[in-house]
Amino acid sequence: MGEFELIAAIARSCRTLPDNGFEGIGDDCAVLPVGDGEALVFTCDALCEGVHFLRDAISPEALGAKTLAVNLSDVAAMGVRPVATLLALSLPADLDAGWAERFVAGYTAASERSGVALVGGDTTRSTSGVVLSVTAIGRGPAAHLKRRRDARIGDAIFVTDRLGASAAGLRDLLAGRCGTPLAEIHRTPQAEIEAGPWLGEQPAVHAMMDLSDGLASDLRHILAASHCGAAIDLDAIPVAAGATLDDALGGGEDYKLLLTVSATAADGLASAFEARFGRPLYRVGRIEAADDAALRWLRDGNPVVGDWLGFRHF
Amino acid sequence: MGEFELIAAIARSCRTLPDNGFEGIGDDCAVLPVGDGEALVFTCDALCEGVHFLRDAISPEALGAKTLAVNLSDVAAMGVRPVATLLALSLPADLDAGWAERFVAGYTAASERSGVALVGGDTTRSTSGVVLSVTAIGRGPAAHLKRRRDARIGDAIFVTDRLGASAAGLRDLLAGRCGTPLAEIHRTPQAEIEAGPWLGEQPAVHAMMDLSDGLASDLRHILAASHCGAAIDLDAIPVAAGATLDDALGGGEDYKLLLTVSATAADGLASAFEARFGRPLYRVGRIEAADDAALRWLRDGNPVVGDWLGFRHF
Repeated sequence: MGEFELIAAIARSCRTLPDNGFEGIGDDCAVLPVGDGEALVFTCDALCEGVHFLRDAISPEALGAKTLAVNLSDVAAMGVRPVATLLALSLPADLDAGWAERFVAGYTAASERSGVALVGGDTTRSTSGVVLSVTAIGRGPAAHLKRRRDARIGDAIFVTDRLGASAAGLRDLLAGRCGTPLAEIHRTPQAEIEAGPWLGEQPAVHAMMDLSDGLASDLRHILAASHCGAAIDLDAIPVAAGATLDDALGGGEDYKLLLTVSATAADGLASAFEARFGRPLYRVGRIEAADDAALRWLRDGNPVVGDWLGFRHF
Repeated sequence: MGEFELIAAIARSCRTLPDNGFEGIGDDCAVLPVGDGEALVFTCDALCEGVHFLRDAISPEALGAKTLAVNLSDVAAMGVRPVATLLALSLPADLDAGWAERFVAGYTAASERSGVALVGGDTTRSTSGVVLSVTAIGRGPAAHLKRRRDARIGDAIFVTDRLGASAAGLRDLLAGRCGTPLAEIHRTPQAEIEAGPWLGEQPAVHAMMDLSDGLASDLRHILAASHCGAAIDLDAIPVAAGATLDDALGGGEDYKLLLTVSATAADGLASAFEARFGRPLYRVGRIEAADDAALRWLRDGNPVVGDWLGFRHF
């Protein structure tokens, strides 16, 4: 049983249990309304040495900051502000002296920059590699929450930044080019913790999620949850400097936001975003009617045959 | 740097960060008041193969139930009901087919018995052993919360059940006696998720925590947080059948509750507990004035010289 089958088995189990007022399983976060129109959101992620990071390829401080950012990104993608995390550290006995303190220093400094509390944790010995587990908590008006299921036919599709830098940086790292600006972007992703809550305040924003696996893969989650399709204009994809279109569509770990916006409000929202953040929102396509979460790729307005994964081999 | 020094370093870091309305760092759980007199509580724990469990010594289903119980115990110790968990699974490639599904089945069945939702999770590959991380969430009236710092001089000290069975069961397991009733108790601890919230409702209960490291060790956390001492009557310790006094005082993983109760209300509370749960509360000592969290051991009312750890070697 692979990871996706296991996740599906867990999700089935979740549905047989009482919900105790929680909702939103299947989104970036679970949601708990708590009265006075407020809601809390929750997400949890684990990072394993040798799978998600190599201990020699990233400083403990940078890994601490990245571990936090990955989780805050899921909260920001719900349209609310992250307020706290809990951190479980499983540490092997052969760690260099000071590694754990340096990791915690990086995690704490990033928490401070992000205005996020650290409210609990656990440290245990690991018989093998480092395993880092974080639960992140967000809080905000329930009316601001953005879910994957709320895309509507005709919506404009936006991303909040140029894409592909992280994938290009990973390529640099794997080739031993550890000092490039792209490698640094891969090591130190910045979650959209200001843009996410601001977009949460905008009623014109319908569905939102963060880009962790690449647009071509992540958008399908919105399409499946919203029972619609999409057309993406390949000419409009904002490719980061040094990255390729492949990196931008199929690369992971950008941690930018992907959102759908009411077509009539799209231009106004883009202008307001640029006025607020001093950088553009990038319009990359539109939501279409489709039974099967179909994703169409356009170039010069004309459909390109095949899905994005197909392109990669040409 | 050992585990305790690292935890202390993390705790120092916590205090420099914004609290965002959270309180109670240092208790079993962090606390977030959410309006209408309600509060949520949060705790997180990791269990590592080879450190906290041996994959061959416990069935995946039992491990699933135990992983949940350990975390629910921390919530119950705050005096409120657990409502949900998030589960991060890091799984090695060499796992037997079906292990993960059986673990999830055990975790889910225990969640159902406990009335607890499963609201999020992550599954990742591990390059080594199984690592299980759980965040548990509780919810209840803020006025019901019990904290370690609230013991008062003169309070009676109680435990909610006989102690030491888990330590005796671990001894059986390590000696290869895997089928004994005590070994089964070690493998399948039951958190006090009914007694904890009921005790939370009682204003006469002042401080409370769960017994995970043994009374002799755990009580010191209450004494330190409450700036007081205690006298424990060794003759009154309720030793589980098959366990020793050493197991009861120094053994871990009982997951029963330790609480201090207003002296004038102690008898009435014990009677009410027995009427409600059909089993006694065990009164084991009293809180005393002391500057240094001093713990005195009495036998037949007379002080025994030395602390409990000293006894172990005779």
